[in-house]
Amino acid sequence: MNALNDLMTGELKAVNVGLASFADPIAEAGAQVVTLDWRPPALGDAAAAMRLARLFNDERIEKANATAIERVLAAQAVMIDVVTARDAIPALGEGKLLLHAGPPIEWERMCGPMRGAVAGAIVLEGWAADLEHAEKVAASGEVKFAPCHHHDAVGPMAGLISPSMPLYVLEDPTTKKRAYSNLNEGIGKALRFGANDDEVINKLRWMNAEVGPTLSKALRSLKEPVNIKSNIAQALQMGDECHNRNVGSTSLWSRQLAPALARQGEPGVRVLEFMRDNNHFSLNANMAACKLMTAAGHGVPHSTLVTAMARNGVDFGIRVSGCGDRWFVTKAPIPDGLYFPGYGPDDANPDLGDSAITETAGIGGFAMAAAPAVVGFVGGTPADAVAYSIEMADITLARSRDFQLPPLGFLGSPTGIDLRKVLDTGSAPVIDTGIAHRRPGVGQIGAGITRAPLECFLEALGAVDESL
Amino acid sequence: MNALNDLMTGELKAVNVGLASFADPIAEAGAQVVTLDWRPPALGDAAAAMRLARLFNDERIEKANATAIERVLAAQAVMIDVVTARDAIPALGEGKLLLHAGPPIEWERMCGPMRGAVAGAIVLEGWAADLEHAEKVAASGEVKFAPCHHHDAVGPMAGLISPSMPLYVLEDPTTKKRAYSNLNEGIGKALRFGANDDEVINKLRWMNAEVGPTLSKALRSLKEPVNIKSNIAQALQMGDECHNRNVGSTSLWSRQLAPALARQGEPGVRVLEFMRDNNHFSLNANMAACKLMTAAGHGVPHSTLVTAMARNGVDFGIRVSGCGDRWFVTKAPIPDGLYFPGYGPDDANPDLGDSAITETAGIGGFAMAAAPAVVGFVGGTPADAVAYSIEMADITLARSRDFQLPPLGFLGSPTGIDLRKVLDTGSAPVIDTGIAHRRPGVGQIGAGITRAPLECFLEALGAVDESL
Repeated sequence: MNALNDLMTGELKAVNVGLASFADPIAEAGAQVVTLDWRPPALGDAAAAMRLARLFNDERIEKANATAIERVLAAQAVMIDVVTARDAIPALGEGKLLLHAGPPIEWERMCGPMRGAVAGAIVLEGWAADLEHAEKVAASGEVKFAPCHHHDAVGPMAGLISPSMPLYVLEDPTTKKRAYSNLNEGIGKALRFGANDDEVINKLRWMNAEVGPTLSKALRSLKEPVNIKSNIAQALQMGDECHNRNVGSTSLWSRQLAPALARQGEPGVRVLEFMRDNNHFSLNANMAACKLMTAAGHGVPHSTLVTAMARNGVDFGIRVSGCGDRWFVTKAPIPDGLYFPGYGPDDANPDLGDSAITETAGIGGFAMAAAPAVVGFVGGTPADAVAYSIEMADITLARSRDFQLPPLGFLGSPTGIDLRKVLDTGSAPVIDTGIAHRRPGVGQIGAGITRAPLECFLEALGAVDESL
Repeated sequence: MNALNDLMTGELKAVNVGLASFADPIAEAGAQVVTLDWRPPALGDAAAAMRLARLFNDERIEKANATAIERVLAAQAVMIDVVTARDAIPALGEGKLLLHAGPPIEWERMCGPMRGAVAGAIVLEGWAADLEHAEKVAASGEVKFAPCHHHDAVGPMAGLISPSMPLYVLEDPTTKKRAYSNLNEGIGKALRFGANDDEVINKLRWMNAEVGPTLSKALRSLKEPVNIKSNIAQALQMGDECHNRNVGSTSLWSRQLAPALARQGEPGVRVLEFMRDNNHFSLNANMAACKLMTAAGHGVPHSTLVTAMARNGVDFGIRVSGCGDRWFVTKAPIPDGLYFPGYGPDDANPDLGDSAITETAGIGGFAMAAAPAVVGFVGGTPADAVAYSIEMADITLARSRDFQLPPLGFLGSPTGIDLRKVLDTGSAPVIDTGIAHRRPGVGQIGAGITRAPLECFLEALGAVDESL
């Protein structure tokens, strides 16, 4: 507004629209210049821009989006049990199937961390005696692969779900719809980063044999099931954004479950130790809650609501409410972040994991204003964190009624990405993310911020247009 | 700075110093006027202002304050045990002695909630068969009263500590100094608000018999004792200010202790349930940590560091590092806050409790920027919360090296009140506080913000001056 006043009173000599660097020579020449943050709509594609203008004026889309976002906002998510994957997802009991993060991908195109995780899962399932043999089995076509998202599930990083693993079962009490996620293995060496040595496999065996069944007993003993959506809402008041910062959510949840776990004897004690030692323990359950919320808005004909953003470490893919099961994919970006000592961008794998379901549901990077302390992990300043939450309101359909951002006067978190708004503003969805080493087995090497690549949004725009 | 620029360029016509209302007629007359937030030093007392100027130029005070604040900043606080009060504080084993919050007070002058708490404690100790008889015993002179602060202890609200109660034992591992606090009874009807019926007394009996001993066993089984100072530091990254918001601190601490408590069988389960159901469970331990930190800075000759602020519901008192055991007291204010439905300011007891030790140590109201969500409990907006933390830097000697405020770019919390700076600026220490009903037994009726009354600071200034 100051710039506008200056312009109107003749104090301002130049307005620079678009690339900020174009303003430099004018400023160097001593003239006053203001840069307007503007990008051409639809990535500068004139035909797509026309299409975009048309879709902004289509009543059917407005109505469909109102329906879809209302379902997202109204969805609830309570944890009802932890069960073995093959019991939750029937397809996992019908042959050698492994679920993975992101859009569909075959063994040949998988990135290092995902190959490492696949090999580990094959050994865990006993489909191969060792890792070397496991890679041959994976390449043979004997094992089938499918995205977690195809089975109402999500998993962070490589996102491997194999038949014997325990899964959280989350349910919306109104619609009875369910969503699933695997359990968090802790920091350090972990299958989700492609680590797969004996220590990793033995921990997974212990999780299958003890952690899952003990959590199940504890959960089923509760008079009131744990409400994960409410837990996320409280955690946003406790400095979490529930993607890269989960210490509040994990601590709250541990405190809620502790008496029921304590009643399970020594196994309960060990599960409580496992929860004590991992500040991200709750992440996977939070992701499953987000999957349940976004899935509620999926499948509304003509809706431009984005209901999934997911990465397999090679491709970045989105799904759109009005476009059915179709994925729109483009190359996955390398995150911009803080690296652990000894590592840098050259070591980083392209963006990986289903965890962007948090941003799709309006938390994570979209709720970063609530989590100033996350910048110590992902980079930037608390002011940047606030700015991300403000910017994301430009590309979303609503504000959450449950997830509030205290530093923004308790405004609801921006929720429900409208692919039209993304393409109109050029504001790409911001995603907090972990960074995996590109080689299997090394593990996490940092954390950072990335932006969704927009080519897949443009393709989705075309698909919505064709559907009308 | 804008006002200064306007003044220098002749755009500003008037500067109003002091009372903001004086600017109104000027503004109404159409002139531009800026109000400078200024109060006369030393509450407008000219002789005291001269004294203040002298004390600001005294090298001995500067040196003493540097020593005192360094001790406060360096102090650590780990929880080593929970023991019975009479074993921790020998005076409690030597006759009928009760400790209470705030500066010294006798039965006749005690407020309603404190009388209720005293009567309850007398029944708990078996010094009277019922409440009616207990009041007679209290009035008879048979029971002695002393401030918690006289025995290295603190207690919230009425702050009653009687011989049979369990106390947290906090220790600085370097100096081996100790501080104590009672255990939090939970919300609702509680002795600290003057409630004293059978339900209250029975809960206290259970805490004596089971909660204290079970916590003790769990704490003594830990390889590493719980570091309460570090716990507070983490909680400030989780939206707590650790006075009126303790959900992060309580959850973290519960998660740390859960495995050790789970190993105690059914009593451990019940303690975990007790911790689960009270978002303020950690408050008392946090207060004892603050007492240990502030006590470290006490007793440095000539230092103007405030080492205690405490209220007994009638008087507000402070202690000053260079003034030994002396209390400087004035009338306790009524807090300005949010009331629970059905209650208002007319029901409120004047400010009560030792919990202002949190502000004395640089958290609570001083760290409110870290806790935007606390405004839902104490009133105001997140912007007010940030403003309090900024203002308190004007009256403190240092910034904490451990307690960081994320929304202020991780600046250390303003720590160590210098009574000279308080009197120079007129900025009174801001205190988050609970509000008790003035009648015993009703309990908490709200929470809010109060400011320390400054008359006692003026009296302390005189005492420091005389000591030089």
